[in-house]
Amino acid sequence: MKQETVSRRDALKLGALGLAGAMMAATNAMAAAPKETEVKFDEEYDVIVIGSGFAGLAAASKAAERGLKVLILEKMGRVGGNSVINGGAFAVPNNRDQQQFGIKDSADLFIKDALKAGLGINHVEMLEVIGKRAQETFDFAVKCGAKFQTGKKPTWFGGHSVARTIVTENMSGSAIIQPMAAFVEKLPGCKLMTRTKFDDFVMSADGESVVGVAARENYRFNKKLLSDDMENTGGTKKFFKARKGVILASGGFSMDKVYRKLQDPRIAEDQDATNHDGATAGAMLKAFQIGALPVHIDWIQQGPWASPDERGFGVAPLLTQQGLFVLGVAVDVRNGKRFMNEMADRKTRADAEYVILREDPKANPVAIGTEKTFAPQIAHAVEKGLQTGVMKKFDTLDALAANYKIPAAALKETIKVYNETAMAGKEDEFKKQTLKNLKEAPIDMKGPFYAIRLQPKPHHTMGGVKINTKAQVISGNTGKPIPGLFAAGEVTGGTHGASRLGSCAIADCLVFGMVAGENV
Amino acid sequence: MKQETVSRRDALKLGALGLAGAMMAATNAMAAAPKETEVKFDEEYDVIVIGSGFAGLAAASKAAERGLKVLILEKMGRVGGNSVINGGAFAVPNNRDQQQFGIKDSADLFIKDALKAGLGINHVEMLEVIGKRAQETFDFAVKCGAKFQTGKKPTWFGGHSVARTIVTENMSGSAIIQPMAAFVEKLPGCKLMTRTKFDDFVMSADGESVVGVAARENYRFNKKLLSDDMENTGGTKKFFKARKGVILASGGFSMDKVYRKLQDPRIAEDQDATNHDGATAGAMLKAFQIGALPVHIDWIQQGPWASPDERGFGVAPLLTQQGLFVLGVAVDVRNGKRFMNEMADRKTRADAEYVILREDPKANPVAIGTEKTFAPQIAHAVEKGLQTGVMKKFDTLDALAANYKIPAAALKETIKVYNETAMAGKEDEFKKQTLKNLKEAPIDMKGPFYAIRLQPKPHHTMGGVKINTKAQVISGNTGKPIPGLFAAGEVTGGTHGASRLGSCAIADCLVFGMVAGENV
Repeated sequence: MKQETVSRRDALKLGALGLAGAMMAATNAMAAAPKETEVKFDEEYDVIVIGSGFAGLAAASKAAERGLKVLILEKMGRVGGNSVINGGAFAVPNNRDQQQFGIKDSADLFIKDALKAGLGINHVEMLEVIGKRAQETFDFAVKCGAKFQTGKKPTWFGGHSVARTIVTENMSGSAIIQPMAAFVEKLPGCKLMTRTKFDDFVMSADGESVVGVAARENYRFNKKLLSDDMENTGGTKKFFKARKGVILASGGFSMDKVYRKLQDPRIAEDQDATNHDGATAGAMLKAFQIGALPVHIDWIQQGPWASPDERGFGVAPLLTQQGLFVLGVAVDVRNGKRFMNEMADRKTRADAEYVILREDPKANPVAIGTEKTFAPQIAHAVEKGLQTGVMKKFDTLDALAANYKIPAAALKETIKVYNETAMAGKEDEFKKQTLKNLKEAPIDMKGPFYAIRLQPKPHHTMGGVKINTKAQVISGNTGKPIPGLFAAGEVTGGTHGASRLGSCAIADCLVFGMVAGENV
Repeated sequence: MKQETVSRRDALKLGALGLAGAMMAATNAMAAAPKETEVKFDEEYDVIVIGSGFAGLAAASKAAERGLKVLILEKMGRVGGNSVINGGAFAVPNNRDQQQFGIKDSADLFIKDALKAGLGINHVEMLEVIGKRAQETFDFAVKCGAKFQTGKKPTWFGGHSVARTIVTENMSGSAIIQPMAAFVEKLPGCKLMTRTKFDDFVMSADGESVVGVAARENYRFNKKLLSDDMENTGGTKKFFKARKGVILASGGFSMDKVYRKLQDPRIAEDQDATNHDGATAGAMLKAFQIGALPVHIDWIQQGPWASPDERGFGVAPLLTQQGLFVLGVAVDVRNGKRFMNEMADRKTRADAEYVILREDPKANPVAIGTEKTFAPQIAHAVEKGLQTGVMKKFDTLDALAANYKIPAAALKETIKVYNETAMAGKEDEFKKQTLKNLKEAPIDMKGPFYAIRLQPKPHHTMGGVKINTKAQVISGNTGKPIPGLFAAGEVTGGTHGASRLGSCAIADCLVFGMVAGENV
């Protein structure tokens, strides 16, 4: 693939961070966590959970089921964070449905798959817990009201050695989130507060333990700010005491314009992600400040299959993954040439797209294919893509080239060589596997031609705070748990190593959420 | 290359961190940085520098030259940290010696090289400063007494597009460290204290600014501890006031048995590194706790060319890089087969070695070759390697195989195929470039045969705290500099991205050390 180059336009102005003089004195920008001797608690609970996604609700449900009084703080106006817009796929190693359909699986096989995807740097002891407790966690979620498609053959997700994924009834995380939130709220003494922003931990008088949190009620997230965490001063300050402990389940930071760019300067500030707007790093950074250990924080999984022409995840991932990328090509609009194996792993493809986008941030590559490249089951997505304009249809390659300002002759030559190479049974320059044993040219020159502009979108942040197998947050000062502090889900790091496998987010969040709720 | 697998023996017991009940209440294990209102300062300086390596001494020299009273704290018994055992190679983009010898270079070309090695995630604004100020920094080091081989054609280091590296007179960092330490110490009011361990920052009463440090005099680093930072309580507590600021130049953490393993669980606790024993994460973690932003902390550069049969860097890197790897093979001792391109990049090779070592931590791969693989200029190293026993010499492949318990028949078959493939002008299975156009078999079957056991060794930690182009440490709470805190060198992250180029450590440390000394 093409080498990384730099253009002056592209020189990253991260230094500007230090010059943001216009930033207000945000109430969560305090230098050190307050001590209980310095605050007056407004309310008191056994457990305070920060975040209402999969991890937060699993933790809250388990703690509440144990009879504890639980308060869940959610900064956004709606419950469920990123989980509620998740696809609802839960990898359950060695589950009952696999057994019923004769699929042999084991915790070891799951760990092997995760280590391969994670480039060998996963924390194996965490994967062991998921491997051992996923089915039990699944059953707990069902007990709390979550609705899954059970009794069917599990779904086979990329990177897994076997089909081990069970999908929710409505193929959305909402089928887990909504019942679990209701499960907690109906238990005595439990409460879920939306629009309540966690600001900081409250520490014991000796500074060693977490005993509560500082937060702001009636707060409204402002997505127009460069950093809501640093700049938004809205809401009314309140202090909540946690008699048993605080569970940090604040999620990842794929939409944190400042922090994600520090880790990967290729991600422009105005670049969209597949995540909801509230996916920011603020709560995680506060944990680092009381001694939590940062692990793997720069591994940001980015989807090379996304489009800049729609918000969030959208339909482009389906239209490319099960469509244009399979038999079609992705080309650099500046020269009409291919620049990657359209079926390579996510990171390889996102890296290849960034090489182009760093040279010219407006030169989004274009994926091109014909009707027959689309899998039959995505017909509805093809329709939706065309309706919303994310995908466009052209009768001729000339019309397509004109629309995206691709040199037409070069584009035609690219496709001609691509077709001829495949028909000759030769390996193409990028060694694409899906071109083997084709009976006809992969791109049908009769047309019509379909095209989608491409843009990598941050999808999952692998890193976060280090927890042990009891979901206790480990202190960098002592090597021991920080008393009173637990964490689970995307805010933790280590479990997935360099790259999370599909359908393992729910597994991680629900299992360690439950573990946190057991141990708090 | 072979896929990652997991063995039960290998399951990482990072959870045990949380169970280290035997750990003592170390004085640097405090939960929060003290405020000036809580301490009594013992001594007062303008500037306090933490660490006496390249970055620390450049910062101290520049500040001292400006007339400031500077205190340098060094925890070890000798000055210079890792820098004093460094090879003394300084990449100076577009330097005078290049110009004299007609080598065309530019800051842009340097940035392009660094971005390629860094996988595109480098913070370009930091590279720009190095590109712009390296020659000036070089001149400043010379002014302070550093001795370089100037007036010669610069050296060409791997990954650089041109020869741009100038080496010290004695090919060691000591030719920079010793004169610069003397330069500072002879200036009025300046002091360098060895065996003085930084424990924490002292903050202003409002908690917003760094105004001094807590440290321990008469401290002795204890390399037998799992974590000296967490467990060593030795020394006498002292508080030092810094009127102008504190400069953190505490280096990397390649020898931090706990923290490096959190980031890369493949690195065993007892695994050696190329670094000195004091290369630990403690001071960096304290900076995270007052709001410094962690960047790229899990990118640990590991040398695949090192041997477990000697301490530190040793002679193996020379004997493999300019010897056995070039024409010889590296084999898996369990099956006698090759498992990597012996000339691939560092990360690819270290990853391939770890695949084997995770399956069996004692199955160190062995590099094998014959006399003619060694470059003539490393004859002294060949002699030293044989003398110390790092490299062994065998008359026959049978004797070699017996010594390392390699299946002899399989080993001979591997070498037969390797030689035949090269002689047939075919590409070998790993596409090794150095086998092209050979006139005779790469491995001379007459023998004698030379062999070295291999073990990846941590060499440089790319990540650390985020600084801006003025070497100010940026706060995650405000996005602005933390008043009174500067940092430079290996303790900072972002500049090198995912992987540092050879001879860019001195460039980074001296340039940003000087910048910190200018701005404090």
